[in-house]
Amino acid sequence: MDADALIEWALESAVSESESPPGPPLLASAIRHAVFPGGARVRPQLCLAVAAACNAGSKDELMVSAGAGASLELLHCASLVHDDLPCFDGADVRRGKPSVHVAFGEPIALLAGDALIVMAFSTLARSTAGTPEILARLLPIVTAAVGAPHGIVAGQAWESEPGVETDAYHRAKTGALFIGAAEAGAASVGADPAPWRKLGEHLGDAYQVADDLRDMLLDEEALGKPAGQDAKCARPNAASDLGPRAAMAKLNGLIEAAADSVPDCEGAPALRNLVHAQASRLIPASLAHALA
Amino acid sequence: MDADALIEWALESAVSESESPPGPPLLASAIRHAVFPGGARVRPQLCLAVAAACNAGSKDELMVSAGAGASLELLHCASLVHDDLPCFDGADVRRGKPSVHVAFGEPIALLAGDALIVMAFSTLARSTAGTPEILARLLPIVTAAVGAPHGIVAGQAWESEPGVETDAYHRAKTGALFIGAAEAGAASVGADPAPWRKLGEHLGDAYQVADDLRDMLLDEEALGKPAGQDAKCARPNAASDLGPRAAMAKLNGLIEAAADSVPDCEGAPALRNLVHAQASRLIPASLAHALA
Repeated sequence: MDADALIEWALESAVSESESPPGPPLLASAIRHAVFPGGARVRPQLCLAVAAACNAGSKDELMVSAGAGASLELLHCASLVHDDLPCFDGADVRRGKPSVHVAFGEPIALLAGDALIVMAFSTLARSTAGTPEILARLLPIVTAAVGAPHGIVAGQAWESEPGVETDAYHRAKTGALFIGAAEAGAASVGADPAPWRKLGEHLGDAYQVADDLRDMLLDEEALGKPAGQDAKCARPNAASDLGPRAAMAKLNGLIEAAADSVPDCEGAPALRNLVHAQASRLIPASLAHALA
Repeated sequence: MDADALIEWALESAVSESESPPGPPLLASAIRHAVFPGGARVRPQLCLAVAAACNAGSKDELMVSAGAGASLELLHCASLVHDDLPCFDGADVRRGKPSVHVAFGEPIALLAGDALIVMAFSTLARSTAGTPEILARLLPIVTAAVGAPHGIVAGQAWESEPGVETDAYHRAKTGALFIGAAEAGAASVGADPAPWRKLGEHLGDAYQVADDLRDMLLDEEALGKPAGQDAKCARPNAASDLGPRAAMAKLNGLIEAAADSVPDCEGAPALRNLVHAQASRLIPASLAHALA
């Protein structure tokens, strides 16, 4: 199985687990709606790529890495469901279809987000069955990436604070889950996660700048979600702060820094290539060309 | 340290972890508001009591059991924060003070609930550091008690389904966390959780009937939260379905069944006494007397 197929398999296993009767059927449908079809699955891709670079060899190891990646993707999906709710962005569209609260109502959307958070941890438990010491390494990485005070939940909370610390906000809102993905990739195969933290940081920063550029310059049809949300919600946006050209240059610099940060290991050259290949998908080619 | 002090210590450790800067301060305050001062802490009490009955001996073992109990209490607090939101019960008061969304606004309340869910799992990770095989046993127990399809999130979701399966609803909404507490108590000291499931089931059922009686017969001042919520929200309620006297008799029968279900072990007599002692706190004595 290639990485794409492995990730979808791990997500499908997790979601179908939540569908066994007698469970509430609307909740099950909302969970499936939130996870499939997905976006680029960049966080689990990063997790699996780092695992591969650390020389994930056996089939068992691959399954653990896929489980860790799926866990992070489920947490990402949960954050999208909650962020789209009327008390935050009030976004009606996500990935080109109705957002979960539009399709299923607010109560079920809120609970689907909660259930996805819990599912991330049951997925971690299931995929590490038989290797408890790997679970013990992964669990703190994943909780740090998501919870308070520095994970994505804290990142979203900064938007409701009277004084926003922009660095802490961006690092928590976007960076934390990329850092978690890079570290989890290493930890999932028993490698030291510390040397991989920088890769996650740079990719998280790059992804944030790309997101800001897309939010400012693309329309809803191209985005699959409402455009201009940062301006509407008065949130910091690198593309409007720096101007689009300078933001594009910053994005390119961050991608170089990410590739350079890959620790020397057997799989390093392949991973550096992958960083560049994935980066080229962050911004539509025509837009990147226009801003070069 | 007695059980009360141990539980508060474990909760304080978890909450203060979430307050380290630079995190969003409103979120940190909302989390503290949701957890302290607490209610009767019945779920962690149950967890620690089962652990003691299974002969938790060493200080390390006690810390693991306290961490597991705190994890379940944090999940209970998260569910209260989310259930109080306007899209569910719209309850303005909880434990005699403003509910979290009244004190901090809806966005922060929603995120505080999310952060508490994640905190439950970081607490589990921290308290089992050094005993990964115990973590591997506890994590599936805790996720099953909370997530879809049969945990408390699913229980809340039944309220938004067009057709409610009452048994599945009550078992998930209240019973699941009691079952989790009983099983986690055993697993936290390396004992087999299976023989303890019945105790959690019966106590969960008893607690649900007691809750229904209190909701129907007490006022907001005595409850510390709005009264008559089941009638207002058209939810099943044992006290109105059976009548208060029959509901009280059912409650007493469930408490007997719970005490009888305690597996034979050195700590069984003490635990059976504790079940009766705790049960007498479920309903104010004057009310229990009137319904006898």
